[in-house]
Amino acid sequence: MRIGELSARTGVPVPTIKYYVREGLLPAGELSSPNQARYEDSHERRLRLIRGLLEVGGLSLAAIREVLTAVDDKEKPVHKVLGAIADRLVPEHGGGEPDAETVLAREKVAQLVAARGWQVDPGGPAGESLAAALAALSRAGHGRFEEVLDAYAEAAERVAGADMAYVSRMVAREDLVESVAVGTVLGDTMLAALRRLAQVNLSARANPAP
Amino acid sequence: MRIGELSARTGVPVPTIKYYVREGLLPAGELSSPNQARYEDSHERRLRLIRGLLEVGGLSLAAIREVLTAVDDKEKPVHKVLGAIADRLVPEHGGGEPDAETVLAREKVAQLVAARGWQVDPGGPAGESLAAALAALSRAGHGRFEEVLDAYAEAAERVAGADMAYVSRMVAREDLVESVAVGTVLGDTMLAALRRLAQVNLSARANPAP
Repeated sequence: MRIGELSARTGVPVPTIKYYVREGLLPAGELSSPNQARYEDSHERRLRLIRGLLEVGGLSLAAIREVLTAVDDKEKPVHKVLGAIADRLVPEHGGGEPDAETVLAREKVAQLVAARGWQVDPGGPAGESLAAALAALSRAGHGRFEEVLDAYAEAAERVAGADMAYVSRMVAREDLVESVAVGTVLGDTMLAALRRLAQVNLSARANPAP
Repeated sequence: MRIGELSARTGVPVPTIKYYVREGLLPAGELSSPNQARYEDSHERRLRLIRGLLEVGGLSLAAIREVLTAVDDKEKPVHKVLGAIADRLVPEHGGGEPDAETVLAREKVAQLVAARGWQVDPGGPAGESLAAALAALSRAGHGRFEEVLDAYAEAAERVAGADMAYVSRMVAREDLVESVAVGTVLGDTMLAALRRLAQVNLSARANPAP
């Protein structure tokens, strides 16, 4: 298809599509004449993926580029790619000398990981992200919110179990890797929205309208 | 304390503190002389809250201002404030004519809410956010990821139950409202990080190192 049809099908303006191609997010179309490129269904699908990660997942273009690079790297074993994607999706924190709250929060994360018998590095990006949230709670005077941590960890195990069951049914490597990228980003959005709905439900039941 | 001490205690540079005051995020200090303002412990706590929402929660300054306005509005009943905060924390989606995927996704959200007996408006901001994620999955060719929805909803109920149990122990209105704002934002970060850790754990167990 021509770029105009790709734009019409996806709702993405032509200049934006050209921008994604220039930025290396979308492969260039095949030139069918000096001024015209032909795009395939794979371009349409990749474009929808970019828009979903951008608009619903809230990822930056730089983060999307890194996710797509990991998806497209055919040399890496799937297991490694999944880890790389997960790491890139977690916001980076800090650098510099850790303050007292951060040191304490890291200890708590290590304790949690040990108590649950999780085979993960508590000092990796996800563990650091959790420690940053715990440290911020403590700094803001809400350290007691940590009381919910165990319930959160159990819920996370349940969600991850559903994620992995879904992923294990994938056969083709591309489907598998792309699913994890999409599911990780949009899954966070889904989970946050469901948490909000469940909170409002419980709050409405606790405070019935007069 | 003077602004220099406030800066030293919180690690926030003096020009940034002045910027927050100009932008209405932080109340001005009390003038102790024409060129000097005195800041209280309440300023320090508010400043830590702003930094936590900004750096760990990833909120924009505009979103933080709206959350703080809701926290500070003493006229509103607590229940309404909580709903307003939850609504403001969900990213706004779309406008314009909904596409076929959005229409279908909204139906699925309404079905889910009905099936779980949740007393919530599925067309509110959280329901719309969920619908946007489902529509994006469908557009990107990953509609089958919806299979996890029930497991996610159950996990969300568990998390929201822990949230409400924590909140119900608050006595003072200010503590209550601020806790919900903090817990909602940083709780999402915690949950996403824990989901990542639990995924890596399950993945490591399924693919043991040789």
